[in-house]
Amino acid sequence: MRTITYGGAVSLDGFLAGAEGAIDWLHFSPDVQQVMGDYWKHVDAILMGRKTWEVAAAQSPPAKQRPTGARSKRPPMTTYVFSRTLTHIDRPGVELVRDDAVGFVTALKQQAGKGICLMGGGALAQPLIAAGLVDEIGLNIHPILLGSGIPVFRDPGRRVPLRLVESRTIDGGCILAQYALDPR
Amino acid sequence: MRTITYGGAVSLDGFLAGAEGAIDWLHFSPDVQQVMGDYWKHVDAILMGRKTWEVAAAQSPPAKQRPTGARSKRPPMTTYVFSRTLTHIDRPGVELVRDDAVGFVTALKQQAGKGICLMGGGALAQPLIAAGLVDEIGLNIHPILLGSGIPVFRDPGRRVPLRLVESRTIDGGCILAQYALDPR
Repeated sequence: MRTITYGGAVSLDGFLAGAEGAIDWLHFSPDVQQVMGDYWKHVDAILMGRKTWEVAAAQSPPAKQRPTGARSKRPPMTTYVFSRTLTHIDRPGVELVRDDAVGFVTALKQQAGKGICLMGGGALAQPLIAAGLVDEIGLNIHPILLGSGIPVFRDPGRRVPLRLVESRTIDGGCILAQYALDPR
Repeated sequence: MRTITYGGAVSLDGFLAGAEGAIDWLHFSPDVQQVMGDYWKHVDAILMGRKTWEVAAAQSPPAKQRPTGARSKRPPMTTYVFSRTLTHIDRPGVELVRDDAVGFVTALKQQAGKGICLMGGGALAQPLIAAGLVDEIGLNIHPILLGSGIPVFRDPGRRVPLRLVESRTIDGGCILAQYALDPR
C-alpha cells in the first residue's frame, strides 16, 4: 500500500504560513535541500486542496508557457486537486477530484505507485488524518512564533497517537521531527 | 534581572491540556523528573492566571489542612495569581495580583530573586510574551494530536523570533525543545 506523508515547515506555534500566506520566515539550507531531495525520490503523487492549488498555480506557469526545449528532470508526478467549487483544471499532470476525498484517497492508496505527498493547509489533512489515511507526519519546526496564519493541524475530532521516528536539529535552529501514524 | 520561563508538556498540535482539561496523555519518566528537578532549583516564583490557579488550588489542599508535622523540602516559593475577578486568596505563599500583569511582572523581574516560572494556559503568557517579558520557552512535545484543548500559544500580535538552545529526544518519544527569546 502507498504511504501518505503530511507536514512541512511550521512555526513553533503550528502555522504553515503566516498572516496573508507569508512564508518569508522559512529558512532554506543544504540540510533542507538534502531532506527534501531524498523525500521527492519516493513520491509520485501530490494531494492538495483548492486553496493550496491556487497558490501553487499562481507560482508556476502552465507547461505550455515554459520556454521551448525546457525539460524537467523530475520523474512523472500526478497532482490531485480536491475541490467541490472548481469545475475543471487544464494543466498536464493535474487532476481535479470532486469526489469525497476520503473515498478517493482510500482507493488511490491501493493502486500501484510510489509515495503520496499531502500538501498545504490542514483543511484537506483534517479528514484524511481523521480517517486514518495519513501514514507519516514530518515537520520542520522553525524557531519563531507567527501568532496567526494557516494552521498545520485542525481538530480531527479524535486523539491521534503518534510514534516518533526521528528528531534532529538542522541548520537555522530548526527541529526536524518525523512521526508514524498507525492505521485506524 | 530575573529570568521568566514559559512552557510545559504539549501535544504536537500545541495543547497543554485536552478537552475539559484532560492531562491523562502526559508521559512521566525519569527523564522528565530529572529535567524538572533541575529546573525547580532555580525558581522561587510562579505566575499563573485565574483558571490555572483554580485547577492548582483544587489539586492541593491549603497548608493548614496538611497532616501535622508534614514539612516540605521545597525552598520557599511565591505564587502570583493574576485575576481581575477574584477579590482575595487566603493561602500562605500565594498573592493575588489585580494590577496590570505587564506592569507588575516588569517590576517583579527587577527585584532580587531566582527564576520565575510562568505556568498554565496561554491567556497570561500572551501579553507577557507580546511585551517581551518572557526569556525562555521550554516545551516537552508529546507524540500525540489532541485536536482541541488549552493552547500553549495565543496570538501575541507580532512575530516573535526564537533561538533554539537545546533539542533532544527523551523517553516516550517526547522532544524536549528549549528556546531563548531576546528582550524587546
